[in-house]
Amino acid sequence: MSSGTLKIEWAGQYMPVLAAIRKQFVKERPFEGMTIGMALHVEAKTANLVSTLAAGGAEVHITGCNPLSTQDDVAEALGKVKNVNCYAKRSCTVDEYYAAINDVLDAKPVITIDDGMDLIHYIHTKRRDLLKKVIGGCEETTTGIHRLKAMAAEGKLEFPVVAVNDTPMKHFFDNVHGTGESVLSSIMITTNTLIAGKYFVVAGYGYCGRGLARKAHGLGAKVIVTEIDPRRALEAHMDGFMVMTMEDAAVIGDIFVTTTGNCAVIAKKHFAKLKDGAILANAGHFNVEIDLEYLHKNAAKIIRRDGIETFVLGKKSVHVLAEGRLVNLATPKGMGHPIEVMDLSFALQALCTLHIAKNGKKMKGGVYDVPNEIDEQVANLKLASLGLSIDSLSKEQKKYSCSWDIGT
Amino acid sequence: MSSGTLKIEWAGQYMPVLAAIRKQFVKERPFEGMTIGMALHVEAKTANLVSTLAAGGAEVHITGCNPLSTQDDVAEALGKVKNVNCYAKRSCTVDEYYAAINDVLDAKPVITIDDGMDLIHYIHTKRRDLLKKVIGGCEETTTGIHRLKAMAAEGKLEFPVVAVNDTPMKHFFDNVHGTGESVLSSIMITTNTLIAGKYFVVAGYGYCGRGLARKAHGLGAKVIVTEIDPRRALEAHMDGFMVMTMEDAAVIGDIFVTTTGNCAVIAKKHFAKLKDGAILANAGHFNVEIDLEYLHKNAAKIIRRDGIETFVLGKKSVHVLAEGRLVNLATPKGMGHPIEVMDLSFALQALCTLHIAKNGKKMKGGVYDVPNEIDEQVANLKLASLGLSIDSLSKEQKKYSCSWDIGT
Amino acid sequence: MSSGTLKIEWAGQYMPVLAAIRKQFVKERPFEGMTIGMALHVEAKTANLVSTLAAGGAEVHITGCNPLSTQDDVAEALGKVKNVNCYAKRSCTVDEYYAAINDVLDAKPVITIDDGMDLIHYIHTKRRDLLKKVIGGCEETTTGIHRLKAMAAEGKLEFPVVAVNDTPMKHFFDNVHGTGESVLSSIMITTNTLIAGKYFVVAGYGYCGRGLARKAHGLGAKVIVTEIDPRRALEAHMDGFMVMTMEDAAVIGDIFVTTTGNCAVIAKKHFAKLKDGAILANAGHFNVEIDLEYLHKNAAKIIRRDGIETFVLGKKSVHVLAEGRLVNLATPKGMGHPIEVMDLSFALQALCTLHIAKNGKKMKGGVYDVPNEIDEQVANLKLASLGLSIDSLSKEQKKYSCSWDIGT
Amino acid sequence: MSSGTLKIEWAGQYMPVLAAIRKQFVKERPFEGMTIGMALHVEAKTANLVSTLAAGGAEVHITGCNPLSTQDDVAEALGKVKNVNCYAKRSCTVDEYYAAINDVLDAKPVITIDDGMDLIHYIHTKRRDLLKKVIGGCEETTTGIHRLKAMAAEGKLEFPVVAVNDTPMKHFFDNVHGTGESVLSSIMITTNTLIAGKYFVVAGYGYCGRGLARKAHGLGAKVIVTEIDPRRALEAHMDGFMVMTMEDAAVIGDIFVTTTGNCAVIAKKHFAKLKDGAILANAGHFNVEIDLEYLHKNAAKIIRRDGIETFVLGKKSVHVLAEGRLVNLATPKGMGHPIEVMDLSFALQALCTLHIAKNGKKMKGGVYDVPNEIDEQVANLKLASLGLSIDSLSKEQKKYSCSWDIGT
Repeated sequence: MSSGTLKIEWAGQYMPVLAAIRKQFVKERPFEGMTIGMALHVEAKTANLVSTLAAGGAEVHITGCNPLSTQDDVAEALGKVKNVNCYAKRSCTVDEYYAAINDVLDAKPVITIDDGMDLIHYIHTKRRDLLKKVIGGCEETTTGIHRLKAMAAEGKLEFPVVAVNDTPMKHFFDNVHGTGESVLSSIMITTNTLIAGKYFVVAGYGYCGRGLARKAHGLGAKVIVTEIDPRRALEAHMDGFMVMTMEDAAVIGDIFVTTTGNCAVIAKKHFAKLKDGAILANAGHFNVEIDLEYLHKNAAKIIRRDGIETFVLGKKSVHVLAEGRLVNLATPKGMGHPIEVMDLSFALQALCTLHIAKNGKKMKGGVYDVPNEIDEQVANLKLASLGLSIDSLSKEQKKYSCSWDIGT
Repeated sequence: MSSGTLKIEWAGQYMPVLAAIRKQFVKERPFEGMTIGMALHVEAKTANLVSTLAAGGAEVHITGCNPLSTQDDVAEALGKVKNVNCYAKRSCTVDEYYAAINDVLDAKPVITIDDGMDLIHYIHTKRRDLLKKVIGGCEETTTGIHRLKAMAAEGKLEFPVVAVNDTPMKHFFDNVHGTGESVLSSIMITTNTLIAGKYFVVAGYGYCGRGLARKAHGLGAKVIVTEIDPRRALEAHMDGFMVMTMEDAAVIGDIFVTTTGNCAVIAKKHFAKLKDGAILANAGHFNVEIDLEYLHKNAAKIIRRDGIETFVLGKKSVHVLAEGRLVNLATPKGMGHPIEVMDLSFALQALCTLHIAKNGKKMKGGVYDVPNEIDEQVANLKLASLGLSIDSLSKEQKKYSCSWDIGT
Repeated sequence: MSSGTLKIEWAGQYMPVLAAIRKQFVKERPFEGMTIGMALHVEAKTANLVSTLAAGGAEVHITGCNPLSTQDDVAEALGKVKNVNCYAKRSCTVDEYYAAINDVLDAKPVITIDDGMDLIHYIHTKRRDLLKKVIGGCEETTTGIHRLKAMAAEGKLEFPVVAVNDTPMKHFFDNVHGTGESVLSSIMITTNTLIAGKYFVVAGYGYCGRGLARKAHGLGAKVIVTEIDPRRALEAHMDGFMVMTMEDAAVIGDIFVTTTGNCAVIAKKHFAKLKDGAILANAGHFNVEIDLEYLHKNAAKIIRRDGIETFVLGKKSVHVLAEGRLVNLATPKGMGHPIEVMDLSFALQALCTLHIAKNGKKMKGGVYDVPNEIDEQVANLKLASLGLSIDSLSKEQKKYSCSWDIGT
Repeated sequence: MSSGTLKIEWAGQYMPVLAAIRKQFVKERPFEGMTIGMALHVEAKTANLVSTLAAGGAEVHITGCNPLSTQDDVAEALGKVKNVNCYAKRSCTVDEYYAAINDVLDAKPVITIDDGMDLIHYIHTKRRDLLKKVIGGCEETTTGIHRLKAMAAEGKLEFPVVAVNDTPMKHFFDNVHGTGESVLSSIMITTNTLIAGKYFVVAGYGYCGRGLARKAHGLGAKVIVTEIDPRRALEAHMDGFMVMTMEDAAVIGDIFVTTTGNCAVIAKKHFAKLKDGAILANAGHFNVEIDLEYLHKNAAKIIRRDGIETFVLGKKSVHVLAEGRLVNLATPKGMGHPIEVMDLSFALQALCTLHIAKNGKKMKGGVYDVPNEIDEQVANLKLASLGLSIDSLSKEQKKYSCSWDIGT
């Protein structure tokens, strides 16, 4: 077996939910005759989603969604799967990256699956010829959904897109646990530094940030949270973390991770205050959260190690991991989200793709929530795979929960 | 100073948010000429809310909302505050309890503040004469809101009620941290048992349940969660807790706390499986979560200690705390929620009461969310009282968060 | 049943290890004809130790070891147990306290059991007439052992004393978990303040301090540790806590607990820096860790609440719990160590008393460790009571662990 | 700069304690004229120790102590350092491994530094000619010290060896935090599985095991501990972990890590009970804790992936990481202990080597503890490097801690 196939099989064994859906797809062939275009991180877990869709009858064309996240052996093995065409290549140039996007679109997909909105953006700007054919899409990431909602708000989103990120089963597991663990393991393996005892700064206390904060703290770090929302700031405070501005955190932090989805979260005014040896990483989708432009312009010297760029600023060194791209995927050893959370996220993708295949033509342009029954179906499939039983309401309890005339 | 006054002052010093609001009320006298009827747990923290409303010009009539939660010395001191009348008495009979509800209503309040919906229920059933005068109300607790929504769904709620519980600033702090800590301290002080090493069963993984689970685990317990919702069950599982049905939990649990708002969560089929010496407590508003009726009917013997009833069932003893009433308040030593969370909750109450005073007449009958600006105002006042600064979006960041044309 | 008896029975059900030892004592009557003098906190758990010794044939005379820790109803019930005489009274004066010590000694005990060395100290100073008769003693607490070792170092300890505190089964459970939980529950119930989000300062990172630190942190506090030992300071740092001097901690702390066994840990130079509303408590045996003398001399005003003294210093108030005595026992609602840890500690006491009864005459004056086989016996009894099985070494493993010729 | 040099410099910046010692060595040249033989994991952190010793005047000859732990680029860069000779090669055969040991010994070292006792074992068995010249040695690991003590007990250890592992500064940091974090990061990166929610079985609750247990739990795992010592088993129980035999744990565990130092901890009777997909790893020095021989003999099929061997046993697959060797070092991506803990461990090594250089000739054959003043010196250097200040005893406190006549 090739190394790519071995990786795909390894991941497959920890993806029981997707396996259950695949069984259904094999039987029902819901995508027969449809072409699906995808731009996702091409690695072993994604390969299992792709082959699940192909097993459901789809012709799949896929490329990467980030120049540093493709695993070439997986891409090669995936390209050999029946009805799958793969154009992704690690460390491609920006031109190559967009050429591959174009390759996917040349196949005239009727459904798009994005992680960062590149396919949808391209279709709406440079390949508007395809708009007529597309019946809908799915988007994987918070950042992409931000952009899609902005587009929709301007009336410019011309087909329905399911926001696969904006659903409990994604927030609670992929964001909280997947990002939390993979960011930590990637930082630990790349830098070989200790987490215990460190001042670990988390920018943003959304689902990603709080998972990361809790787990860093679980390893023994002293966690500092920065926020722009007063309620989230108070939550972090009460959860036992220190809360302060990034300017104050810059002075004492040892390791910084941004999880905000916004730009310039660590920028000029912060660089000036960092300690010598500070480590900066980003867990948001785009490489804009750390102001790299400033660093490149102002560093006296830049030293490159595997996954680490050291910027010499005056007498101190500041280390940026993975060129400021998402640190859990884009370091040389980074493996991305753990398999089990991607099992849930890709189960949502597979079922939302099915939803679009069935209903897309009837839906107007815009951003749609994951249907609640899909979200719950994935939860139930996962519980079943774990062998966990839970309680259900008795008749008496159902009645009680609707009553209002029972007093003190 | 009387012991009641000393207690009220003690609480007052840890309620900076309410103090800031009181300053505003003293200046603006927004309740001038209004009568407010209240049914809340009458203890030191509540007294600070009451005197804040009175300082704003209101005439306040208050009684308890639970027969076991009144602190008599505080009630006495509170009754001496200008423009305040207090009818609450600890360990009153059910008849006395409802007589006091009637006393409050005899004052013809125009605004009601409930914790468990007793005033509103009474007005809508036995004192319908008052309906014309009432301009609106506030309800403090999840359980009360359940009942109000059921009423509203039947079209039977005839004035506007703000659901003070259903708002981020209440869920995140009062429910998570307030319930979590006070339930634990009350159990620890009442039973003198160790939490470390115990199998600690939490029924329900809502805001109350997850706060309690996390803190019990923080003391060294092995936490088991029971749920009826598959997503919450998975969250508990991933948060590191064991998830199972109550029937399975009954076999191994040492301490059980119900936080569901529903009835018969621990009932006949569970009692049969409990270990000798199992401790049962309830953190929900009403004493229905443990099936006490069954226990009283079937126990061979009942032994009463301070805050503990021991039911002898065959060869084993099962201990119920606080007669199955909310364990953080209704044990002899229980102090209820910590002061700081009640500062937030009562700040919400004070501002929502102001909101009703200003707008109630224009609002239709029904259940209303806490206005978002009130929720945020309380968060900002609390951050200010802690001396915490947080970041705010730069112009560049605001622009970025609305853009959609910046790619990979 | 009297309230004292009910309390003793309540505790008894969670003391399975002592119950197993009692069974053995009833059969063997090892203390037949012996008088045992005791000075311990007289409450329900101690009562179970006392009756266990009496069940073994001893005549027991007991008084308290702290003026604020006796529970009068338990003392009364205990006095009615066969062969037991109890002289303890809550809130006794210092004169009454020492009169009761004298009462115990008047019974001419041959074995002493102390918690704080009062009996031994008295015998060696004012009742030297008894020295000939005493065959040995047991001492429960760290502080007492400090003092005994100092005595022994000067050659002034004239009979053998087993240091029941200095043994793994005491350190790991009584100190870490017992002190940790009971200090927190006592502070929470006495002050009704929230732990989450607070700066919680722990002076000393010994067994007591680290248990307390970990559990406060488990409730959501930000923990600060002060130490005089560099290695312990580093341990605290790596465990995720902030480490600083008490002078620096004084500026930011909300709640302070001393666990050092030394004097003036919080003193003049610290009081000056405390925040308004700071809460100070002591978990060490004697009331010397907080410099109360200074506070009493320098406070403009002192306000007394149940378990809390408020010292007004300039514009700020500083609150001291339990008059600076051990906060887990000496607040009005404090219950002392949880039952299950006292089961272990008193099982050690019972077996060490047996050890002295059998071997004391052959042992020279001095401080002795708990024999390792007693320590292990208690561990095994506890595991058995929990129904826990553990592995044992196979023949092959025993051989491997003694070998040195198996290489890479 | 070569990649090896870049790695060595990266590590160097997070090793402030060793840097402080190097400064002293450069000045004093304490090893002038001495040859030091070393067998350690040859990677970037070790390189900093080696160059520190060389900077102190030593001629150093070094090879690896494990066939899978050498980093070839670091070995190459290290070999170019003045007065250093390096013979280590990754993935060498057993013959090559021992040939390199011989190469080191051919240089006739007067001091040995081992991690696993290979040099000392070789000298005492096959190179007894060297015994006369050797003045002493240092041993890094628990496992090596086990073997040395067994040797010493038989009177067969002919020169003094400092047990660098058996000292507080090593146990508390290297074992607890270093092993804990590096084992987790290596497992996470190698398997890409999620830790949250998993049943994570830790065999052994010594320093390594408890660090690992706490951190796995900090990431959201449900931790199960197996032990042979009843006290440690109870500690684990009270720390909130489940305790059971390995046979019971085998049935429910998802991930297993052995930290016992003994053999056959997971063996035939356990394999039979494992779940399909169970992951097994070892954190002890030697590859004996998992019975690999059995697996190799009985697997129907073996599949090899990077760092993972899958053994197909009947219908299930069992995965062993790093061929059962220490998982934090021997997986392809494993980085070994975090830099900061090795800074402490290697500072101890450097100072103990100095101690042997100065005193070895006067010391008899046997195993010696790290002198307490060395241990404390390292703690103080580390605190200084962190900028942390701690308290010191006042005169009054020193006096109090020696007194015994201050009563209740």
